[in-house]
Amino acid sequence: MRITVRVIGIGPGGPRQITLEAIDAMADVDAFVVLDKGTAKDDLRQARRDIVDRYAPGRNVIELVDPPRDRHPADYDAEVRRWHEARAELIAAALTDSLTDGGVAAFLVWGDPALYDSTLRIVDDLARRPGLDLDVEVIPGVTSASALTAAHAITANRIGEPIHITTGRRLADTPAGADSNQMVMLDGELAFRQTADADDHIWWGAYLGTDDQVLISGRVGDVADEIAAVRAEARARIGWIMDIYLLRKPSNS
Amino acid sequence: MRITVRVIGIGPGGPRQITLEAIDAMADVDAFVVLDKGTAKDDLRQARRDIVDRYAPGRNVIELVDPPRDRHPADYDAEVRRWHEARAELIAAALTDSLTDGGVAAFLVWGDPALYDSTLRIVDDLARRPGLDLDVEVIPGVTSASALTAAHAITANRIGEPIHITTGRRLADTPAGADSNQMVMLDGELAFRQTADADDHIWWGAYLGTDDQVLISGRVGDVADEIAAVRAEARARIGWIMDIYLLRKPSNS
Repeated sequence: MRITVRVIGIGPGGPRQITLEAIDAMADVDAFVVLDKGTAKDDLRQARRDIVDRYAPGRNVIELVDPPRDRHPADYDAEVRRWHEARAELIAAALTDSLTDGGVAAFLVWGDPALYDSTLRIVDDLARRPGLDLDVEVIPGVTSASALTAAHAITANRIGEPIHITTGRRLADTPAGADSNQMVMLDGELAFRQTADADDHIWWGAYLGTDDQVLISGRVGDVADEIAAVRAEARARIGWIMDIYLLRKPSNS
Repeated sequence: MRITVRVIGIGPGGPRQITLEAIDAMADVDAFVVLDKGTAKDDLRQARRDIVDRYAPGRNVIELVDPPRDRHPADYDAEVRRWHEARAELIAAALTDSLTDGGVAAFLVWGDPALYDSTLRIVDDLARRPGLDLDVEVIPGVTSASALTAAHAITANRIGEPIHITTGRRLADTPAGADSNQMVMLDGELAFRQTADADDHIWWGAYLGTDDQVLISGRVGDVADEIAAVRAEARARIGWIMDIYLLRKPSNS
């Protein structure tokens, strides 16, 4: 069975932060696959459904509940891979049931599909399964990193400097010489409080592009506690949080 | 004189890779500022003009020719700063001539305004000039980095790994431990030929999102010469080139 699988970046969260190309790519989709992480992110799921309703009304939406995942495994990479394999099996069965030969399935991805999103890895797993012959198409989207810098009206770096994109888990591993500008994603623990110097500058943002958007920036020594307090309050009130921050070392010059 | 300056990311090059938010942001612009780098990139300038014609027809377009710049200065950073200052003076004069109090000026930026683009630095310089009171708004765009990974249908990293974004000039400076995935921009010299190992993997792309798009990927030892040859041929034929590549170290596992 031959199908097209389209992985569509829909931007960081604002309903107008989607590209014309992404809207075009929804037009002939037969079935949208939505993975329900089983968390409290109901409004994120609803926002994605709203996008389907607006740009591909009446289309089949396949809602799948993620297989269970061990969040604190002994071997992190192995557990992530096992979990992806289980998801691929679930999705393959759903696609085979819902589509006919030559059909088009799509995944909508917040931000950009290349950046800390597992959909393309799921699709790679799908492509390896017998009986499915996939044409994969990827539509780039605006990243939350771009939304953060835009909201603060800043560039990601000083002239010519590199930018290091990493996660909270890996933040302490960034070598000296790569840490002049660090864009930190997926950090539920605000790891910068362990790694950053008081004189580093931070630009933090949550719920970027949405009505709930919150921004805080300043010297780490001055604003770290405020970020932690605002983050905890918003997370408790809204039920979930998506945030990101840029850390910058003081200039050498 | 108070004016709004809007810096609008219009994506990596494809006319449909613009966001609805960017289109919205053009609607009430009084004057678009276009900086002519005085190079042979006529079709890039025309593509930007086409976007204005489509989304803000009939609007004033201020074309300014960049002040001259020393491309091989003894002090690179100082020369870039001097050049930005000269640009700011030129633009301030043009805005004062063209706009009335409360007017809206806009710059259209390929890709995203935060990533290796000088417009926000020019606007910072503008904001420091006496007599101009600026409200700065930034609209994020799809980056060429996202266009590259989408065109190759890959993620920017393996699970959990960091991504280091740098330039050809700085590529040799990336410390070990930060070089597992390097996204390299602004590299007219294909610096990876000096820094990469033969077993590293490269995904290269030029003219991303346009009809001229070219993609090459493979083991550096296998495709480096092909990339150099294709790049030189395309650049000679088209008159300019915009390209980007991702370098990845072999997995440790």
